[in-house]
Amino acid sequence: MKIDAVDFYYLSMPEVTTEADGSQDALLVRVSSGAHQGWGECEASPLTSIAAFVSPISHGACRPVADSVLGQRIDEVADIGRIAALVERHSMDLLQAAHTWSGIEIALWDLLGKARGQPVWRLLGYQRAAKKLPYASMLCGEDPDETFARVKQASARGFRAVKVGWGPIGQGSAAVDREHFMAARSALGPDGQLMVDAGQVWREDVASAALRLPALQAAQVLWLEEPFLANAFCAYSALAQRSPQVRLAGGEGAHNALLAESLIEFGRVGFVQIDCGRVGGIGPAKRVADYAAERSVTYVNHTFTSHLALSASLQPYAGLLEHRICEYPAAPKSLARDITTNHLTLDPSGELSVPDAPGLGIDINLGALQQYRVDVEILLNGRRLFKSPNG
Amino acid sequence: MKIDAVDFYYLSMPEVTTEADGSQDALLVRVSSGAHQGWGECEASPLTSIAAFVSPISHGACRPVADSVLGQRIDEVADIGRIAALVERHSMDLLQAAHTWSGIEIALWDLLGKARGQPVWRLLGYQRAAKKLPYASMLCGEDPDETFARVKQASARGFRAVKVGWGPIGQGSAAVDREHFMAARSALGPDGQLMVDAGQVWREDVASAALRLPALQAAQVLWLEEPFLANAFCAYSALAQRSPQVRLAGGEGAHNALLAESLIEFGRVGFVQIDCGRVGGIGPAKRVADYAAERSVTYVNHTFTSHLALSASLQPYAGLLEHRICEYPAAPKSLARDITTNHLTLDPSGELSVPDAPGLGIDINLGALQQYRVDVEILLNGRRLFKSPNG
Repeated sequence: MKIDAVDFYYLSMPEVTTEADGSQDALLVRVSSGAHQGWGECEASPLTSIAAFVSPISHGACRPVADSVLGQRIDEVADIGRIAALVERHSMDLLQAAHTWSGIEIALWDLLGKARGQPVWRLLGYQRAAKKLPYASMLCGEDPDETFARVKQASARGFRAVKVGWGPIGQGSAAVDREHFMAARSALGPDGQLMVDAGQVWREDVASAALRLPALQAAQVLWLEEPFLANAFCAYSALAQRSPQVRLAGGEGAHNALLAESLIEFGRVGFVQIDCGRVGGIGPAKRVADYAAERSVTYVNHTFTSHLALSASLQPYAGLLEHRICEYPAAPKSLARDITTNHLTLDPSGELSVPDAPGLGIDINLGALQQYRVDVEILLNGRRLFKSPNG
Repeated sequence: MKIDAVDFYYLSMPEVTTEADGSQDALLVRVSSGAHQGWGECEASPLTSIAAFVSPISHGACRPVADSVLGQRIDEVADIGRIAALVERHSMDLLQAAHTWSGIEIALWDLLGKARGQPVWRLLGYQRAAKKLPYASMLCGEDPDETFARVKQASARGFRAVKVGWGPIGQGSAAVDREHFMAARSALGPDGQLMVDAGQVWREDVASAALRLPALQAAQVLWLEEPFLANAFCAYSALAQRSPQVRLAGGEGAHNALLAESLIEFGRVGFVQIDCGRVGGIGPAKRVADYAAERSVTYVNHTFTSHLALSASLQPYAGLLEHRICEYPAAPKSLARDITTNHLTLDPSGELSVPDAPGLGIDINLGALQQYRVDVEILLNGRRLFKSPNG
């Protein structure tokens, strides 16, 4: 089989706000090879990722992603890694290429899985997929009462684990942050797992982050996520040494496996969170999962968009029994729900099963997406370089 | 003053080939504030960097670069860092934003310098700019004889230092590579400084890189550049430990100061090479220069395009007397020369002076650029989002 076509669908809510909710738009990718198709999703900035696919070549190490993908052979799992290496070499100086390629790579696993009638996690070498414990991933409320109400609602929906963050966290005093942490713990009860996401708010300021440690500990928070900039390995390491009880989490910003591994090796995080839509897809994510498992670091998916992205994010560690917890977008926009006809739902015990179906086990609802579609047209010197697909 | 406009000029040679020559296209940036203007240059993939400036917002942490720049106050040096922090926070999930912002940041320094009648290196706190020793940066020939001829030609032009690389290096046997290294040394003579650029060819394969160490040592090579992927800090470190004489160099792929510092801290390079058009501009590059100087690591500019980019790349370490060597694109395409009316040339002793003139001290030759201009138009749902400037 050869890769015949790669189509990008840019989808958006009618209005996109400045809240930290990543489900407000999406870039779906469809890869076609003969009679087979696969779907993936890039995260984020759809127009920029499309540009990285079609942009004219700048030089030999800055070629558009399309040049390394279209027409390539795709018969077996090894072909995906082979094409990834082409992209890595030929788009070395095209920063956005990693995000563009991520969606394509996911689609290639989906395509290969469907062609063989096997779930992706089986293609990755796992014999079985273990159930995960999903945590409701949500933003903090504007005040502690609102945070309390949101966590209470998630708990009522069956979630045994909840993550709150962004919004007010780190913007005011440590005392205000403490109120949010305690409100969340109070709403969740003493037994649930509670996590806090700081959204990089302290940049490289270890002291400001450390000020919050006593409150995080008092609220029995499992992890503090992204206290610092994605590549601030030294700040991570310094805070980790001061926080033996509340471990650090990070990694969603990694656009290749090496950066995620650096966060483990040099940043000393206890949890590494990988977004398949950024890290280069499912293959590099699996590499990070193996790396983490060897070092007693817990692998966690990062996903905040559709259930296609959710399924993709679960595959790399589907068979790692001890890596139980998983992120679950608890309050996505309608767009994120409407992307797929089927959804991954919690069972009565609050657990989640990774699909045992060909590919990613997710069906795309193209018909429902018409209302969200953003038509993109790019012209260079008056000639059309890119136009969104009609179908 | 406020930032009134940011204009992007996408320029390209009529034909762009797959050779590793970064001077085949360019993205010039003009920033206007009242009566003042400044110029910068992004590196590379012009269309993708334009898209990152104008792309619609995806969510609060994935906004277009324009949102953090247009209308901002620009009265003093601290404003540049303030705007940089806005871009960093608001475009956290937009990978390409770093490259787009880099060109804008350079233009802001140029603008401020011109407004105050001071060279940028003085705004950075340096009292004087020391002369640099430029090395001719060139690609290896297809065979050792061609490599010999190229180095001989550079030597005849007055270069006392030469870097060769890419092309055949690492593609065949270590014996063939050795012939290239020895040919270059033979052409340069025993006293010249010789460097080798491997162009990431060994990815993470320390053993293959180590195979070349005896030949590099025999050819008295000062540094081996980019043996590995930009973020392969562990591979860098492993090779550095096996190579006390030929030190490692890298850093051009860093899109922020933290990644360059990681290459020093964890990768143990002896030379850190920063491209202002990628790292976030002149401010982060100065931070890396200070970081390197404190750790006895030599700072070197990375530049392969116009003399605007060359001047920008020299500013961050203009006053660091012990960091003498600088990259000088020895055989750029006509586009790169035609971008500027004035050029930085070698003096009779083979040295280079950093401009002692307002801003970057470089004049843009807009008239000469007409023949290279690529007109870009981006439409979303039939409405124009971006159109290249007419003027």
